[in-house]
Amino acid sequence: MDYRLDYVSKLLEKTSKKRIETYVISRIWHKLSNSEIKLVPQQYVKRNNEKYALTDLYLPQIKLHIEINEPPHYESIERIEIDEKRREEIENKTNHTVIIIDCRKSLDDIHIDIDEIINIINVKIIELNKLGHFKPWETDNEFTPEFHLNKGYLKIQEEPCLKTIEDICKLFDVKVPKRGFYRKGGIGHPTEKDLGIWWPVEKHRIWDNQISENGVLIYEKNKDLAERKKHVEKYINTKERRATFFCQTDVLGFKFYRFKGIFELDKELSNPEFGIVWKRIDDFIKL
Amino acid sequence: MDYRLDYVSKLLEKTSKKRIETYVISRIWHKLSNSEIKLVPQQYVKRNNEKYALTDLYLPQIKLHIEINEPPHYESIERIEIDEKRREEIENKTNHTVIIIDCRKSLDDIHIDIDEIINIINVKIIELNKLGHFKPWETDNEFTPEFHLNKGYLKIQEEPCLKTIEDICKLFDVKVPKRGFYRKGGIGHPTEKDLGIWWPVEKHRIWDNQISENGVLIYEKNKDLAERKKHVEKYINTKERRATFFCQTDVLGFKFYRFKGIFELDKELSNPEFGIVWKRIDDFIKL
Repeated sequence: MDYRLDYVSKLLEKTSKKRIETYVISRIWHKLSNSEIKLVPQQYVKRNNEKYALTDLYLPQIKLHIEINEPPHYESIERIEIDEKRREEIENKTNHTVIIIDCRKSLDDIHIDIDEIINIINVKIIELNKLGHFKPWETDNEFTPEFHLNKGYLKIQEEPCLKTIEDICKLFDVKVPKRGFYRKGGIGHPTEKDLGIWWPVEKHRIWDNQISENGVLIYEKNKDLAERKKHVEKYINTKERRATFFCQTDVLGFKFYRFKGIFELDKELSNPEFGIVWKRIDDFIKL
Repeated sequence: MDYRLDYVSKLLEKTSKKRIETYVISRIWHKLSNSEIKLVPQQYVKRNNEKYALTDLYLPQIKLHIEINEPPHYESIERIEIDEKRREEIENKTNHTVIIIDCRKSLDDIHIDIDEIINIINVKIIELNKLGHFKPWETDNEFTPEFHLNKGYLKIQEEPCLKTIEDICKLFDVKVPKRGFYRKGGIGHPTEKDLGIWWPVEKHRIWDNQISENGVLIYEKNKDLAERKKHVEKYINTKERRATFFCQTDVLGFKFYRFKGIFELDKELSNPEFGIVWKRIDDFIKL
């Protein structure tokens, strides 16, 4: 199936319990009618040290969030003030724009509001295109090993992504490992000594792996304390560097291995209680 | 909430498990962007004496069915032939048009197909408008007792609809009944002797009520055989006519009381085993 069809139809399916939200998102997508523009549902945004927000819809290419507020959002002055504070915090923290759609309005008025948003989006896309800064939502190509091999490198700023371990292995022309801890979670580079190719999974049965928001640190931690201690002991003195493809599943259920850079073990931050901490030492790898 | 927003968002919610269908329906709706055009999901169509079909989407104003065929429809030659036969039967039986969207295509090609369908629909609407035959999808007004009182009559060809028993009672300026069999299922006309106002429910806890496809007969049947016999005995010699508002719930969960005409009991067709059969004797009532 066409990836965009798969993606957008999953997005509409996922939000179907909030049917007004589905309605608005589907209208924005179809009226934009530009398959180069990516829509992201439930975008995570940090508001301050304690709080975060999930915005209803995010357009990463133009840094625009759209909040689709159903009638309960306007039930009380308190609720309105909370929403307004939330909007301000998101805009201040991210420097993005937040637009709110008020779903108490009539259908015709909601349509007019959406048309205005479509205009805003199209104007921004034209501006970016003029400056040569618009990056289309590439899909089918971008996920193939061939695409990256053709370029000859991976660079974290380009957010390179693979769909499977098989595809990661193709990048380095190595055989796909079948079993065992390290062969399951990674494999040695075919020519470079002390370089591993690693694909940790964020939400794993045995491992509790996390990556810091800025992407500089990876926390690798066995969920079982005894196993965790053994694991730290085994690796604490390793000189190995790891080309890391961090595996995350997005809200729509799509699983990706994203290249996060080359990491090495940080001896100071790691300890038997909390597990191993890996620190990024390079954002680039030649293929 | 705006009725059309309520209706279309429920339609998208309802089909969300068939996500490609939802995607296509939402695109047709948003690209048409004409809230005077009604979309009906899962339209019942009789194919022959034994078989019926539910088409994915139906536009009653222009008698157009749209079938959204996902890849499994093309799995085998047999399946393709079955679909083709089904399409022919629907077109021959109804004199409607059936258009098929092949979802094996790429997203861009599906979009092109939908654009062509949008054109076909718009051309038909323009033609109907020229002839003065286009009846817009009226919603908010059409369901109010005031709308019908203003016209001064109900006529089955116009498919008059009410939303509640309260609204039916307003039409005749009678008090809403509270309890008891007959007062629950109907009430006497305030001025005409032997005329009842009746609102049988199709799917009822106690009653198994049905209306024939051509709307001429209503089968009224208590689910319990002993009660059914008692009920037939009680009414078999009645001379009463009934102005009937048959209550049905559509696939989206909207409940309506639709005026089906004036009925009287058909003594020949009714019997203690099968219940009472009511026969239409008029398609009109003055208000």
